[in-house]
Amino acid sequence: MSHPDFKFLPNLRDHLFEVVFGTETRAGKLFDIVLLWAIVLSVLAVMLESVTEIRQSFGDVFLILEWTFTVLFTIEYLLRLFITAKPGRYAFSFFGIIDLLATVPTYLTLFVAGGSYLVVIRSIRLLRIFRILKLGRYLREASVLSSALVASRHKIFVFLGAVFTLVMIMGTLMYMIEGGESGFTSIPRSIYWAIVTITTVGYGDIAPQTVTGQAVASMLMLMGYAIIAVPTGIVTSEIAQAEKNKKTEESNVRQCVACGKKGHDEDAIYCKNCSAKL
Amino acid sequence: MSHPDFKFLPNLRDHLFEVVFGTETRAGKLFDIVLLWAIVLSVLAVMLESVTEIRQSFGDVFLILEWTFTVLFTIEYLLRLFITAKPGRYAFSFFGIIDLLATVPTYLTLFVAGGSYLVVIRSIRLLRIFRILKLGRYLREASVLSSALVASRHKIFVFLGAVFTLVMIMGTLMYMIEGGESGFTSIPRSIYWAIVTITTVGYGDIAPQTVTGQAVASMLMLMGYAIIAVPTGIVTSEIAQAEKNKKTEESNVRQCVACGKKGHDEDAIYCKNCSAKL
Amino acid sequence: MSHPDFKFLPNLRDHLFEVVFGTETRAGKLFDIVLLWAIVLSVLAVMLESVTEIRQSFGDVFLILEWTFTVLFTIEYLLRLFITAKPGRYAFSFFGIIDLLATVPTYLTLFVAGGSYLVVIRSIRLLRIFRILKLGRYLREASVLSSALVASRHKIFVFLGAVFTLVMIMGTLMYMIEGGESGFTSIPRSIYWAIVTITTVGYGDIAPQTVTGQAVASMLMLMGYAIIAVPTGIVTSEIAQAEKNKKTEESNVRQCVACGKKGHDEDAIYCKNCSAKL
Amino acid sequence: MSHPDFKFLPNLRDHLFEVVFGTETRAGKLFDIVLLWAIVLSVLAVMLESVTEIRQSFGDVFLILEWTFTVLFTIEYLLRLFITAKPGRYAFSFFGIIDLLATVPTYLTLFVAGGSYLVVIRSIRLLRIFRILKLGRYLREASVLSSALVASRHKIFVFLGAVFTLVMIMGTLMYMIEGGESGFTSIPRSIYWAIVTITTVGYGDIAPQTVTGQAVASMLMLMGYAIIAVPTGIVTSEIAQAEKNKKTEESNVRQCVACGKKGHDEDAIYCKNCSAKL
Repeated sequence: MSHPDFKFLPNLRDHLFEVVFGTETRAGKLFDIVLLWAIVLSVLAVMLESVTEIRQSFGDVFLILEWTFTVLFTIEYLLRLFITAKPGRYAFSFFGIIDLLATVPTYLTLFVAGGSYLVVIRSIRLLRIFRILKLGRYLREASVLSSALVASRHKIFVFLGAVFTLVMIMGTLMYMIEGGESGFTSIPRSIYWAIVTITTVGYGDIAPQTVTGQAVASMLMLMGYAIIAVPTGIVTSEIAQAEKNKKTEESNVRQCVACGKKGHDEDAIYCKNCSAKL
Repeated sequence: MSHPDFKFLPNLRDHLFEVVFGTETRAGKLFDIVLLWAIVLSVLAVMLESVTEIRQSFGDVFLILEWTFTVLFTIEYLLRLFITAKPGRYAFSFFGIIDLLATVPTYLTLFVAGGSYLVVIRSIRLLRIFRILKLGRYLREASVLSSALVASRHKIFVFLGAVFTLVMIMGTLMYMIEGGESGFTSIPRSIYWAIVTITTVGYGDIAPQTVTGQAVASMLMLMGYAIIAVPTGIVTSEIAQAEKNKKTEESNVRQCVACGKKGHDEDAIYCKNCSAKL
Repeated sequence: MSHPDFKFLPNLRDHLFEVVFGTETRAGKLFDIVLLWAIVLSVLAVMLESVTEIRQSFGDVFLILEWTFTVLFTIEYLLRLFITAKPGRYAFSFFGIIDLLATVPTYLTLFVAGGSYLVVIRSIRLLRIFRILKLGRYLREASVLSSALVASRHKIFVFLGAVFTLVMIMGTLMYMIEGGESGFTSIPRSIYWAIVTITTVGYGDIAPQTVTGQAVASMLMLMGYAIIAVPTGIVTSEIAQAEKNKKTEESNVRQCVACGKKGHDEDAIYCKNCSAKL
Repeated sequence: MSHPDFKFLPNLRDHLFEVVFGTETRAGKLFDIVLLWAIVLSVLAVMLESVTEIRQSFGDVFLILEWTFTVLFTIEYLLRLFITAKPGRYAFSFFGIIDLLATVPTYLTLFVAGGSYLVVIRSIRLLRIFRILKLGRYLREASVLSSALVASRHKIFVFLGAVFTLVMIMGTLMYMIEGGESGFTSIPRSIYWAIVTITTVGYGDIAPQTVTGQAVASMLMLMGYAIIAVPTGIVTSEIAQAEKNKKTEESNVRQCVACGKKGHDEDAIYCKNCSAKL
């Protein structure tokens, strides 16, 4: 017996794939936009629920909303697993893991209380927005930024290592100088203070009171002043480099067939080296 | 009957236009300087009025001042509308809208209390100062700055998106770790704390008290330390680029004698436009 | 009658000039070092005197010290006026004015109380240290820095103008949103808060309490985050430019006598263009 | 009588040297890894001991741990002194001094109380980690960073001098304006406030309350805003320079076939050293 579904199902699957994963068709675009709004609403719901007054008035509404969104996202996750040709590859991809993690917290609340706030992880799913809006330009800029950060990761590790050693020594020093009255009650807490100070955050919940302590703190601040220049310098020089590479690449596409010279301007009609027509 | 006004009025209008919009004539300059001082005084008056002690002593004076300035600015706005050749174009231009908004708040106070402080929007009108002082140089520098910012807007959006996702996740995490005692009473409030921390503002009205909370906060601060380098790097590399472009343009003396095309590379031997020898 | 002093006095004056203004001779160096220490000690004395406990115990000592230093500095100032060839030029030079201002505050205390702290202005005199230590290198670096700052002054004015307008509008907005309970008692005070926030100082003495206020404050902070990148970008690009100019200047000194090509490396023996000996 | 140890001992010493100082052999690697963990544990122990609750419960455990680690590190230090060919050179090297200082604090506690916290200096020993992991790349990056900092040290000194003078004058001014009520109780304390403000740390333990004080503080903050750009600019331009130098060195493939001299400019036609055609 011929199975009519045999031919239908793959087509349905192809069609669904186009809708769920694709962004080219009208339906695919609509699906993604609805999905993004659902994510935004579900994250907003969790945030509002955390405000005591709102929870007391509309607690039930939020409970229903949360479960509705979670069930929807679970169906969507299973659908993605089903319609993709390689489910394993999707399941262990970056977005696959995020998609799974975005549904788990609500189920967790059946066993453990308070886990529901973790659904905020759904906000990472919003990064899909760049794909939908066909923001190729944004993706390219993001790749400039990330390649600059990747290129500077060794320098940043060296830098963070130096900062961490400095912070440990200065924190211990301040613990010995200040003692418990002004908040330096232990070395870990003093190190926390040193980090708060060197990053120029400066809450003021812990602040030196003795003259010696204030002098050492001033030194740490001025050091932080000079030190904050270092990561900026690293990233700036890498971004400038990444920009230049991108430009060189783009302008190196045009090559003269006569003399082989590369690097022609975009508006060039003749080779600047041998006058052959490009 | 010939109408003498027919010829006079356009002349008056031209003359007024020169005075109100122009900055070349003596009268035009004087008009603008008087206007700027009136703006400064009216903004100062609103500010001083907001100080309780001053309002209680001189409340009536400020009320009279405010209405005087508002009537003057209204007359000025109507005058501008009347004397310009294309009133619609002025009315919907940047300065046209600001000029209108600068008069509205005081009239609003007839119906709604407290709106009068919005006249501070008049301070935007002070930007005209660059035109009066013939600060062409300033305008050019401003255009370097703004073109650098425009060129880097895609990178900055990507960056702000990443920062916002990070801040939402860290804020929720801290809400779960710290609880209400140390000020983390809801997720929106915790996100506010995360923004205060990552931008290194650090008010200290909300600050982590538990050891875990302080450890997570330290991580957020060190991240903020590395992250603050990114917008700086973006803007710096764009400003450097904008500067270079300006310079290239200025020093672009290489011109093809055959076709007049400018902008040839330094190593170019033939014109890239018409293949003539340079 | 020949006047022996006629010849002697100019010589004494020349000699004194060498000692007081010069830094080449042994005596001139010694004079400057003694002077610097006197300045450091007199400033330190004023600082310590401001500490209540120290003033109560050693008040008389500090009074004597202050008058001793002031008389010495007055004598030094008169000496400088006397021995320099052009007293007027010295009196109105940067250091001449500072030298005078450094002696005045103590005399002021005879008429007005509390003025003595102004002698801290003496610390500016310490800048002479760069001259004594023959820190030509430092002076050159300082000139790179200051020429970079001078070159970027137009951009910085434009930038400060934009920041000031933004701060005035945001401050007024927060005054209207927050009201007096959380510290926003008047518009000038709210503008002060906006400056504290946008510069990421963040004392926390005034901080928004309402949800709307915290949302607007978050926006201001993220703006400040992007805005702080601008002066950095300006100064960085100018410093890079100033550095490049310095280097180009240095390397442009060497010119080939055969072909006129400039820009040879410091270790070059032959012209890289025509192989002629440099 | 032949002494068998005579031959054995040098070998043992060579072998030990390979283990203790080397990182190539399996044993050498293991030794370094065990050492690093011992350092981490001993520093952690000191930190935890400073927390009052933990000290009260496990005080004895930490005392034993501290002495065990100290004896181990002392043995290690003596071993290093014994097996190195030039003990004096090691003893006065950077790591030699740190290794000694890392053992001293615990012995100090026999005579002086509270000195034991200084063992946190051991954390500097962790910098050896870069050697073990054969992080040549990290060392090269560190050398880029440090050469950039060294190259910019003159500019940074000039900058710190200017900042210090500014901070002294502003601090004194604020002491005169604010008086003791708002925390400006003495000039040194006001200078501490000025440093806290100009570095944008902003604890808020001392904050201006008067209108004049807040106006002056606003000026200081905006100055700090512009000033923080300077060290960033300095370091950025130096890092970019250091990067360029590194790259020039690496890609310096142009070598004169006649004299072997490298480092020719891209536009060079003749060797700058021997005038041979390149």
